[in-house]
Amino acid sequence: MKKLINKAEDVVPEALAGMAAAHADMIKVFTNPNYIVRADGPIQGKVGVISGGGSGHEPMHGGFVGMGMLDAACPGAVFTSPTPDQMLEATKAVNGGAGVLHIVKNYTGDVMNFEMAADLAKAEGIEVAAVVTNDDVAVKDSLYTAGRRGVGVTVIAEKMTGAAAEQRRSLKDVAAVCQKVNDLGRTMGMALTSCTVPHAGKPTFDLPEDEMEIGIGIHGEPGRKRMKLASAHEIVEMMAAAVVEDLPYKSGDEVLAFVNGMGGTPLIELYLIYNELENYLKGKGIKITRRLIGSYITSLEMAGCSLTLVKLDDELTKLWDAPVKTPGLRWGA
Amino acid sequence: MKKLINKAEDVVPEALAGMAAAHADMIKVFTNPNYIVRADGPIQGKVGVISGGGSGHEPMHGGFVGMGMLDAACPGAVFTSPTPDQMLEATKAVNGGAGVLHIVKNYTGDVMNFEMAADLAKAEGIEVAAVVTNDDVAVKDSLYTAGRRGVGVTVIAEKMTGAAAEQRRSLKDVAAVCQKVNDLGRTMGMALTSCTVPHAGKPTFDLPEDEMEIGIGIHGEPGRKRMKLASAHEIVEMMAAAVVEDLPYKSGDEVLAFVNGMGGTPLIELYLIYNELENYLKGKGIKITRRLIGSYITSLEMAGCSLTLVKLDDELTKLWDAPVKTPGLRWGA
Repeated sequence: MKKLINKAEDVVPEALAGMAAAHADMIKVFTNPNYIVRADGPIQGKVGVISGGGSGHEPMHGGFVGMGMLDAACPGAVFTSPTPDQMLEATKAVNGGAGVLHIVKNYTGDVMNFEMAADLAKAEGIEVAAVVTNDDVAVKDSLYTAGRRGVGVTVIAEKMTGAAAEQRRSLKDVAAVCQKVNDLGRTMGMALTSCTVPHAGKPTFDLPEDEMEIGIGIHGEPGRKRMKLASAHEIVEMMAAAVVEDLPYKSGDEVLAFVNGMGGTPLIELYLIYNELENYLKGKGIKITRRLIGSYITSLEMAGCSLTLVKLDDELTKLWDAPVKTPGLRWGA
Repeated sequence: MKKLINKAEDVVPEALAGMAAAHADMIKVFTNPNYIVRADGPIQGKVGVISGGGSGHEPMHGGFVGMGMLDAACPGAVFTSPTPDQMLEATKAVNGGAGVLHIVKNYTGDVMNFEMAADLAKAEGIEVAAVVTNDDVAVKDSLYTAGRRGVGVTVIAEKMTGAAAEQRRSLKDVAAVCQKVNDLGRTMGMALTSCTVPHAGKPTFDLPEDEMEIGIGIHGEPGRKRMKLASAHEIVEMMAAAVVEDLPYKSGDEVLAFVNGMGGTPLIELYLIYNELENYLKGKGIKITRRLIGSYITSLEMAGCSLTLVKLDDELTKLWDAPVKTPGLRWGA
C-alpha cells in the first residue's frame, strides 16, 4: 500500500486537522464526535443544510462546507457511515431556527443513521427534513444499498440546495429544490483500477491490466460488468447512453454535465472525456449549458470517472450560478 | 497502460478541445499551432503574461489562463516543450501594446524555444521580457535541465504576476514581481509511483512496491534518492527541511505554503501532508499565512506530492489575494 499517511487509524483525524488549519476562514472542525461547520454559522433564519458520509471521497462532503453550499458535514471513517451522534451535534450546531435539511446519499448505513439523528433532533425541538439522493443508474441494489446508490448528483444537489437556503427559502422549499435536483439527475461511473482502504492495506478488488469495470460504486462495490479496456469514445458512449436513456434526457434539453474523476485520474483525461461527452450529447440534441469537471466525489486513489447529467431549468441554472465559497468549490457573484 | 484516452497522438488535441468546449467564457483555444488565450484579450495597455510547457501537467498552464493570471499558454506534446511558433503566435495574440512577459520553467527546451520566440516577437516590434523559474532544490542539474528545474513556484508566480499585470504595472515591474516570487520560492517533490506517457505506453521508471523517490522531477526524471517508503511525517520532515534550509526560511517569516498533488494522489492525503507541513514549520517559527492545496502542477497520474514555500511580504500577499478567474484557480475580490 503506497499512501502519504502515517498510521491507518489516524488518516481521517489528521486530514481533518489539515483541513481545519488550511481553511479557518471558511470552516471550523469539531472532534469527538467529528463534524465540520461553517465558520460564520449558525445563521439565524436560514435553513441549515447538512450532509455526511464515509471519508475517502474528498472534497465531498467536508470540502463543500461554506457560504452557498453546506452548513455542516459529518465525516465517517474511510468508506464507513458517520454515526448518529455526529449528525445530531452537527444538526444542533447549524440550527438557526428555520429547520435543518439532511442530504443523504442512499447507502443503508447513512440513511439509517441520519434517520436516527433526525429523530433525536426533533425530540430536541429542531425541525428536520431529509432528501435521499439515488442517482446511480448502474445497478438496482448493491453491496451497501437497497435501491440505487447516491453518487455524483449529490455534489450538484449540495450546491443548488445551499444556494436556495442562502435565499432564506423555507425548509419545505429548500428540500423541494434538493429533491428536484435528484429527480432530474442521473449518474454512471467506471473504474480502471481499484482503490485501497488504509485499514485494509490491500486493493478492494482486483482488476486485470487489460480490463475495466463499468458501473462501479464509489467504494469499489461491483458495477454492471467487467470488460476489456476500451477507448474513451466507447466508454463515454456506453455510460452516457445508460444515463441519457434512464431519465430520459431528450433532444432540446439543457443540462449540467459533471465529469468527475475518481481520485487517481488526471485532469487531462477528464477534459478528453468531457470532449467525448459533449460530442455524444450534441448528437442527441442535448445541450450542455453548465458543467463541472474535476475530482469532486472520489474513491481514494481509484482511477476512473463518473458522468452525471442534471436537467436544468431557469431556477436550477440560477442556483448553480449563485456565489459559493467553500474549500472545494468557489466562485463569485 | 490504463488511461481514459483514444489514440495516444490525440490526447493533447482532444483534451484541448474539451477545455475549449468547457470554458468558452474564459478561454479561446487555437490550433496549428496550439495556444490558449483569454477570451477577453488582448487587453489594451496591459502587459500580456504568457507561459507554456509540455502537456501532462494540467491544470498548468492552460488552466491558468484568464482574468488575473495568464493571458496565454502554449501546450506542447506530453512532457515535450512547445515550439517557438506557438509562443510567437501567443505573444502576438496577447500584445496590448504594453509588452509581453514570458514565464518559463527552467527546462532546456522550454528556455531555448521561448528565447527564439522572444527574438522573433521583438523583430516584429513587440517588447518582450522573460523570467525563468528554477525553484526545485532537489538536484543541481537534471536530465532535461542545466541548473535547477522550474516547478511548483511557477503556479504561484503565474498568479501573482498576473495580478500585477492586472494593475496595469509596466513590463519591467511585472517581470520584477515574477522574479521576486521565484527568488523567494523553493520546492521539493517526491513520488510513490511512476507515470506513463501515452506515446511510450509503459511507466517512465520502475519503483518497487516498498520504495519512493525523493526529489523527483515533474517528468519522472531522477531525484535525490530512492529509499524505503516512509511515513507522511518523515517524508514532510525530509522535504520541508531541504526547502527551508535552502533559502533559508527563518523564524518569524510569513510564507505561502503550496501542497501539490502529482496527479494520482487523492486530496485526503494532501490535507494530511498539509497538517504535517504546518506542524513542521510551526516548530521552526515559520508562519503559514496563505496556502494552496490540490493538484495544480501534475505529472499525469503519478502518485506523490511536492511542497513549495514562498516567503511573503505585503505586496505578494495582496497579489495572491487579488481576484482570479481561470478554469483552474478562481476566487473573487
